[in-house]
Amino acid sequence: MKAAIIGGSGYTGGELARLLLDHPKIGLTQITSRSLTGKYIVNAHPHLRGKTKLKFIHPQQVEPTDILFLAMPHGLSSKNIETYRELGSKIIDLSADFRLSRGDLYEQFYGEPHPHEELLQEFVYGVVEVQKDEMRDADLISSAGCNATASILGLHPLIEAGLDIDHIVVDAKVGTSEGGKDENLGTHHPERSGSIRSYQPTGHRHSAEVIDQFGFDPGQVSFSATALDQIRGVLATIHIFADHDLEEKDLWKIYRKSYHDDPFIRIVKERTGHFRYPDPKLLRGTNYCDLGFEIDPITNRIVIISALDNLMKGAAGQAIQAMNIQQGFDETLGLEFSGLHP
Amino acid sequence: MKAAIIGGSGYTGGELARLLLDHPKIGLTQITSRSLTGKYIVNAHPHLRGKTKLKFIHPQQVEPTDILFLAMPHGLSSKNIETYRELGSKIIDLSADFRLSRGDLYEQFYGEPHPHEELLQEFVYGVVEVQKDEMRDADLISSAGCNATASILGLHPLIEAGLDIDHIVVDAKVGTSEGGKDENLGTHHPERSGSIRSYQPTGHRHSAEVIDQFGFDPGQVSFSATALDQIRGVLATIHIFADHDLEEKDLWKIYRKSYHDDPFIRIVKERTGHFRYPDPKLLRGTNYCDLGFEIDPITNRIVIISALDNLMKGAAGQAIQAMNIQQGFDETLGLEFSGLHP
Amino acid sequence: MKAAIIGGSGYTGGELARLLLDHPKIGLTQITSRSLTGKYIVNAHPHLRGKTKLKFIHPQQVEPTDILFLAMPHGLSSKNIETYRELGSKIIDLSADFRLSRGDLYEQFYGEPHPHEELLQEFVYGVVEVQKDEMRDADLISSAGCNATASILGLHPLIEAGLDIDHIVVDAKVGTSEGGKDENLGTHHPERSGSIRSYQPTGHRHSAEVIDQFGFDPGQVSFSATALDQIRGVLATIHIFADHDLEEKDLWKIYRKSYHDDPFIRIVKERTGHFRYPDPKLLRGTNYCDLGFEIDPITNRIVIISALDNLMKGAAGQAIQAMNIQQGFDETLGLEFSGLHP
Amino acid sequence: MKAAIIGGSGYTGGELARLLLDHPKIGLTQITSRSLTGKYIVNAHPHLRGKTKLKFIHPQQVEPTDILFLAMPHGLSSKNIETYRELGSKIIDLSADFRLSRGDLYEQFYGEPHPHEELLQEFVYGVVEVQKDEMRDADLISSAGCNATASILGLHPLIEAGLDIDHIVVDAKVGTSEGGKDENLGTHHPERSGSIRSYQPTGHRHSAEVIDQFGFDPGQVSFSATALDQIRGVLATIHIFADHDLEEKDLWKIYRKSYHDDPFIRIVKERTGHFRYPDPKLLRGTNYCDLGFEIDPITNRIVIISALDNLMKGAAGQAIQAMNIQQGFDETLGLEFSGLHP
Repeated sequence: MKAAIIGGSGYTGGELARLLLDHPKIGLTQITSRSLTGKYIVNAHPHLRGKTKLKFIHPQQVEPTDILFLAMPHGLSSKNIETYRELGSKIIDLSADFRLSRGDLYEQFYGEPHPHEELLQEFVYGVVEVQKDEMRDADLISSAGCNATASILGLHPLIEAGLDIDHIVVDAKVGTSEGGKDENLGTHHPERSGSIRSYQPTGHRHSAEVIDQFGFDPGQVSFSATALDQIRGVLATIHIFADHDLEEKDLWKIYRKSYHDDPFIRIVKERTGHFRYPDPKLLRGTNYCDLGFEIDPITNRIVIISALDNLMKGAAGQAIQAMNIQQGFDETLGLEFSGLHP
Repeated sequence: MKAAIIGGSGYTGGELARLLLDHPKIGLTQITSRSLTGKYIVNAHPHLRGKTKLKFIHPQQVEPTDILFLAMPHGLSSKNIETYRELGSKIIDLSADFRLSRGDLYEQFYGEPHPHEELLQEFVYGVVEVQKDEMRDADLISSAGCNATASILGLHPLIEAGLDIDHIVVDAKVGTSEGGKDENLGTHHPERSGSIRSYQPTGHRHSAEVIDQFGFDPGQVSFSATALDQIRGVLATIHIFADHDLEEKDLWKIYRKSYHDDPFIRIVKERTGHFRYPDPKLLRGTNYCDLGFEIDPITNRIVIISALDNLMKGAAGQAIQAMNIQQGFDETLGLEFSGLHP
Repeated sequence: MKAAIIGGSGYTGGELARLLLDHPKIGLTQITSRSLTGKYIVNAHPHLRGKTKLKFIHPQQVEPTDILFLAMPHGLSSKNIETYRELGSKIIDLSADFRLSRGDLYEQFYGEPHPHEELLQEFVYGVVEVQKDEMRDADLISSAGCNATASILGLHPLIEAGLDIDHIVVDAKVGTSEGGKDENLGTHHPERSGSIRSYQPTGHRHSAEVIDQFGFDPGQVSFSATALDQIRGVLATIHIFADHDLEEKDLWKIYRKSYHDDPFIRIVKERTGHFRYPDPKLLRGTNYCDLGFEIDPITNRIVIISALDNLMKGAAGQAIQAMNIQQGFDETLGLEFSGLHP
Repeated sequence: MKAAIIGGSGYTGGELARLLLDHPKIGLTQITSRSLTGKYIVNAHPHLRGKTKLKFIHPQQVEPTDILFLAMPHGLSSKNIETYRELGSKIIDLSADFRLSRGDLYEQFYGEPHPHEELLQEFVYGVVEVQKDEMRDADLISSAGCNATASILGLHPLIEAGLDIDHIVVDAKVGTSEGGKDENLGTHHPERSGSIRSYQPTGHRHSAEVIDQFGFDPGQVSFSATALDQIRGVLATIHIFADHDLEEKDLWKIYRKSYHDDPFIRIVKERTGHFRYPDPKLLRGTNYCDLGFEIDPITNRIVIISALDNLMKGAAGQAIQAMNIQQGFDETLGLEFSGLHP
């Protein structure tokens, strides 16, 4: 089987290429870039030196193939979706274009009407652990955003257990690769190194995915994001205000029940030691989402701590995992890297 | 006038020493350390090389002086407070011992009864901008904790304006110097570098200061702290849920009204550019607290962003500022450093 | 086939465990730690969470096996080498104990006589690319030090080409994991972060390996090391003073000739772009050594730039590569990770 | 007295502005930027928020003043030097334009003839500690480059003591601010963070200053520079090959003799402890150059370790120090900041 990456010069494209080049059941045969057409892909992705002689082609040169990964900036997938459907029967879109199920929510968060509102229902949106069954037969998959994935995986077991949530605050700490490959003064190393930058205190688009996923009222979800002096990583601290009399042993049961069959979810909650809670440092290059939790005895707030690598479980890794499910492969194929320590 | 530092080998002691050695109206003549008695203080504080020949003395060698700064670990100030009162008529305690006004709150957050509950009311607790008047005549001052200072300065104008707050979530991002000078495996560079470490999801003691300061019910204040791969800095994202119909122009008025005479408070809120919100990167070594804000149009949440240097405005700098007020000096004496960029 | 790791709680032990757990032809069945006997190895190696249920055993509990990896601190391999030879017919020592071929050189650099000088000749020392043939039949292999590996791989083609070297200066920039897992004030994050620390201006023991490898006179090799605020990585800048009339195109030929069959050596020398020379950033977790070069037209100095991951090609990766050679496996088995970007 | 900064929007301009705004004897009244004309300087220099209301003016609007600081990119000072001489009788040029004394050396390192070769002899080049006397009466001062300053201060005492040097290797580790304010893909945070980047293995222009200063033959000076994941700082490791029988106690005498009256030079050489050698971490924002040394008993090489902040002692700080000398002020005026720890 063969795959193509449309929009392959960015960071997500580079990670997709790395994963596909090492995948035992799929071959990467086409990858596009308008600005780098004709150049070796190692020019953009130097970690693939010695691994491939593949060159970027122009999007108009793409030939029909089995699977198409769309890794373009916002707005381009939906613009040309008809073309892509002709090129491949299976499409996995990593952009934000088809993540929401409702046009009104899209318009509220993206500031304009969706150009193909009729297709929103055709795409299976998702986080693999939550939408695994729908993905098995899906032709069109829209991969969840990195912060949305961290949030949804942290919340899903509680929703599944029927927790009556009043509202949540998601305070996400993210790396700079989330902003993509385009440089500007704000990403210039002397400016950005050492920075703790509140870049989206309100209105983050990924919060719409959380609202949509769980059927929340928009007023229930408060989301803020702060960019750190790290390249990769999301640590979402999820503060949950709910009517409950749960204890931590109940949370253990709830989380184990939801994720006992999921190889990429690990519950990290130690009483002692140096790694008591999830830390994205340990997850670079991996497809894990580590989850921890704690109940505040004074406010009765539940705190969920969710960590992942935004380019992996938050983007390329999750897309490959979705493809594995879609194709009936073992879910972990090509995603076995355990990460590094220290 | 002369000052002594009790417990001078830690990071706060080092910053106090730096500030006092350069202060135009006060001389640092004594500084103690049990483990380093007899050694030059530059052994512990290498940034003072060439600035001083002062040596550490044993706490029992301290002679009476004008002002005593107590910079010891938790529990030691209160244990020996009677001794210190005989050594200096003016005391500024940087530890947590006398920060709360009520013994019951202390016991709730510190897990044991306060050893000198009768003294809690004698100390003027505080953040200088909020308690300036009380500090002018105070003999005993208890300097606020770093996270409490960031939180209180962010909330004070809204409380002063009469906002009816339902509850708040303070999500603090902090540097590793907050943990002090004692090493352990968790602070070993290969472990800590690159880490985004949730170290206190619930139960942080600084939240008690916020509760106490504003007369909140403990259930109103949710506090979580995450340690970053930075040495200095606090960025507190304060999510406020309140009954209000404020707009951002109202917030401008409210914050300007509270702080128009305060040289160390800057409102940072730009519509464009690369430094639109407060960033502790710019505040290293300074006594500033930078404040920004935004109203979430969907949840009506007010987000306050508060940044400072935990060793300066969050510790040594604020103590010197308090001393300046106490002594009738200009508030900014010895605290003029503007910080570095980039 | 089965392997055991003696001294498995350190960083090198953790990487060996990671590589062996994923290796298709070898099983990791025993791993020792005196201080952690009986505990799950994920306590020391959190990146292996979910990958293994293996527990540390005491060194005295080790049972005979096929291959023994010795990953202990300096001095312990040689002390008990007879015991280890009884436990496994194939031994790969990652410590410094058997790296030198001559007792006098050992004494000069380690400050004491070697306890088993008679064994020095029995071990095949080495960097795999240079000693590949000797390793095929070797029972005892002593893996080269990280800085020595970077230096030797940079120099080997020139020596092979018969360059008449007068003397060299190796200026190595290294990460903090090279110092191992034991914390002290100097590795405490607030002290170490941001530091550019000259930790061994002269007398570094790895320079003895370079002297020994190429038969240099000790006076020909000047070595200095500086530790950076990075966890992993060695960048060795090798300044070579020699009698030559080489041009850069000659260097291309020389390096390609030496390494055309070596999958882990890449020549990185671009005229344009952002990755013109080797950078250890791209090599984290990989077994590559990237090499670049340049001739100084004014001084006729040859500058070699050599980059690797000190825990991988400089330690655990190289040991696995040596084992692959020793066992007749494909050299790259278990070492396929391409690294991450960005 | 009044000063103007020509080319004030870059990092050096920002530091000059910071220092001049706090200087007790000089006022900053004009600062230029073509691209930011009319904007507040805090737009480019956010650390000056609340310190100044000054706005950038266009270079053509500059009015005559007492002192002119030229902080433009290479080539612009010399192009318009006649204009600047009419605007101020005292000029301190921080660019590279007038650093060399000989046109032929300039052409060798800059690749083109100098446009005003006749002026090269009129400028007093320098590092203040070395050229202090010449600077007292100078109208035209050309401030040394950052790497050149680190190298010259490390070598000067040995030259003064008559050491017979055969050749030297300067291996400089530098921060990213040395590259200035213009962003490109190579300085984009995700690319640059974690990088150890060899950016100039040969041919660095600052080496010409060292050659010129000491009358070296160009073949005697080998210079390589590596950029680290730090914003500020130069650590120059200087390997000296010379005919000598010096011991370290002799070096102590030699360095003390040269610098006993120089407040910004500190010898850092401890036998124990955590700060045994100079580390630029401690020098951020200060005007110090810290120097350490060691003799290699095997190669007889002398290793000098020289550390400074490239924007301060390597640029703006040194320029202010030169001005203080030029004007007969105390050398340390406005440069008293001791740096931060941790």
